[in-house]
Amino acid sequence: MSGRFVTLEGGEGAGKSTLLAGLRAHLEAHGVDLLLTREPGGTALGEAVRALVLDPALRDTCAESELLLMFAARAQLVRAVIRPALAADRWVLCDRFTDASYAYQGGGRGQPAERIRELERWAAEDLQPDLTLLLDLPVADGRARAAGRGDADRIEREQDDFFERVRAAYRVRAAEFPQRFRVLDASQPPERVLADAIAALAPLFDGSMR
Amino acid sequence: MSGRFVTLEGGEGAGKSTLLAGLRAHLEAHGVDLLLTREPGGTALGEAVRALVLDPALRDTCAESELLLMFAARAQLVRAVIRPALAADRWVLCDRFTDASYAYQGGGRGQPAERIRELERWAAEDLQPDLTLLLDLPVADGRARAAGRGDADRIEREQDDFFERVRAAYRVRAAEFPQRFRVLDASQPPERVLADAIAALAPLFDGSMR
Repeated sequence: MSGRFVTLEGGEGAGKSTLLAGLRAHLEAHGVDLLLTREPGGTALGEAVRALVLDPALRDTCAESELLLMFAARAQLVRAVIRPALAADRWVLCDRFTDASYAYQGGGRGQPAERIRELERWAAEDLQPDLTLLLDLPVADGRARAAGRGDADRIEREQDDFFERVRAAYRVRAAEFPQRFRVLDASQPPERVLADAIAALAPLFDGSMR
Repeated sequence: MSGRFVTLEGGEGAGKSTLLAGLRAHLEAHGVDLLLTREPGGTALGEAVRALVLDPALRDTCAESELLLMFAARAQLVRAVIRPALAADRWVLCDRFTDASYAYQGGGRGQPAERIRELERWAAEDLQPDLTLLLDLPVADGRARAAGRGDADRIEREQDDFFERVRAAYRVRAAEFPQRFRVLDASQPPERVLADAIAALAPLFDGSMR
């Protein structure tokens, strides 16, 4: 039996952090050897790249640079963290992955999907999650939840139409890859969202998805 | 009349800094409105990326990430600095450009040329220099010159065979694009190298190269 690769996707204020904590507790209680990581980040290089991408002072960063930075962080994370963990039969739970590039740099910034697909192939070794949980929420609801969090980073400072495009692109991805995507209604109470996520994880335990 | 784009390429210890200073003095004495910049760098984002790429603590950075970081810096430099300067009829003298990716990430790290070519097309807008001055020097000579400079950065810490591949890849580029490349014998005294470089620049003044 090999490891499992689960990614968590969604817009601002959709409840990713709360769900991650709940999933972690559930999986560890079931004896899963779990590695939690995030994108961009998860390595020394990736965390440094994350600081650049989110720095409001670098607001002029062009869409091409943003896309390349995301994949620079991802290339390192895949090779140094995710692949070795999966090879050691661990489960990897990653806060965002390549789908986020299709949503944010593709839908949000207008970078062509073909370009992202090409980078996915060689920079991310075409690594695909076994399961992707998409927390879906109307943009206004997510923005209202995120509003109380203090200083917004460079991407959080975008306007509503940007986040509408991000949401739409995420839903297109989910429709395109129904076998690995599960869309969760993030407007529900957190305990309902967690229950739905746990139900979605169940098939991974018997190995039927790999 | 539009601006001119001149790049300076070469390995470690080839004398780029000395030549840059000499060319700057020459061009400004001839009334050229000159912008000096460098790669990776030249923008706030690019300088931050440079620090990552050269940081010896990040020695495990994979070849794919290094390539993507170089083009992330380049995409921003082209759009925010080089294109606007050329559009304003300025001359741009850049310490390294895309040829360095073919040499270091291609020749040195083994990244496929087609991959670099594809990034060049969309990330660097396929921008080509009017003139590229390649300072060519046997690896051992360059290493001996660079040895006295204090702490080596992440790339300078590579072994001789890496720099042999870099030199070979530079020479392949020069052979492939003879119209814009001028190979300068960097084993000559600095004043001879500068004289050769100034001679190579001459055609740019009458506009015959654009």
